Amino acid sequence: MARWEPDARDRLVRAALDLFGEQGYDATTVAQIAERAGLTKSTFFRHFPDKRELLVAGQDTLATLLTEGAAGAPDSATPMEAVLAALEAVTAAFTPDRRELGPKLQAAIAANAELQERDTLKQVGLAAVLTEALHRRGIPDPAASLAAEIGMLAFKRAYARWVTAGETAELATLAREELHAVQSATSTLT
Amino acid sequence: MARWEPDARDRLVRAALDLFGEQGYDATTVAQIAERAGLTKSTFFRHFPDKRELLVAGQDTLATLLTEGAAGAPDSATPMEAVLAALEAVTAAFTPDRRELGPKLQAAIAANAELQERDTLKQVGLAAVLTEALHRRGIPDPAASLAAEIGMLAFKRAYARWVTAGETAELATLAREELHAVQSATSTLT
Repeated sequence: MARWEPDARDRLVRAALDLFGEQGYDATTVAQIAERAGLTKSTFFRHFPDKRELLVAGQDTLATLLTEGAAGAPDSATPMEAVLAALEAVTAAFTPDRRELGPKLQAAIAANAELQERDTLKQVGLAAVLTEALHRRGIPDPAASLAAEIGMLAFKRAYARWVTAGETAELATLAREELHAVQSATSTLT
Repeated sequence: MARWEPDARDRLVRAALDLFGEQGYDATTVAQIAERAGLTKSTFFRHFPDKRELLVAGQDTLATLLTEGAAGAPDSATPMEAVLAALEAVTAAFTPDRRELGPKLQAAIAANAELQERDTLKQVGLAAVLTEALHRRGIPDPAASLAAEIGMLAFKRAYARWVTAGETAELATLAREELHAVQSATSTLT
């Protein structure tokens, strides 16, 4: 009988990151991850379809937050203001424990081509979601695609800073700064 | 003994696209592709590591052309002028027969999630190559990443037009037009 494990998901992610760091991603099995987390394999599979998805879980949540954030911007908002609203909304998913796990997660992804591919596909998927949210605000292409790419680039840079040792600023603050930096860079291109 | 098959690569791609259209990507085997092309399986594997790579072959060539194109722009070139030089260089790989195969290729990719993933990873890989080429010109981030994303977005749009029935313009012409369109869109974002 399945026990109620309120923090199972979090425990599985932490156990997996520890094992990936110790013995590598390829050598780590789902059974080992479950055992390290003090859970069963069936509990693992209630939360994740496989080992690869474990590190990029939550994509649906991020997509929803981006979409709602962009939709919630005032009607008068410019495309970049709508992108900022989307990024601010998505930061809600980035909790303090996610910040703490960030360096281990980055190391695991950097060490494995399969995880890099999955991470890349996640980012491209989120850019497409943001583009679609901007379309629904009546923003045509290529402006919508461009605004979404600028937003994703800024968020990637903000996230990298956020998980850097010694950085104490909030992710939303960093996202605003980086969005401004990337926008400013547009004027240096021609 | 291996025969000299000067057009083997092209024949394999054409045979594969026909079979994907007729019976789907998943149902098509390497043996069937080779047979349809009038070649052996071992000839297939001399040209492609697997079925998936067949439709995104030539990524290394495109990367080299992008890099050389960006490097070959005058020292005085702006970042966007260097991107344009890179795009113009890469159009050399897009021969008339590639244009003719374009719609079949697009249909095959649209119909299969695995090919979509591979195609996405190819595009992201080429954006990274272009970013790196811009770094070597002394362009810092985020300007280099942004310029590369603008370039890739423009090229994607240009390619889509190029393979559209009735479009007769050269790819280089379309790339210039789309690069201009995407750049112009930057001024509509704020």
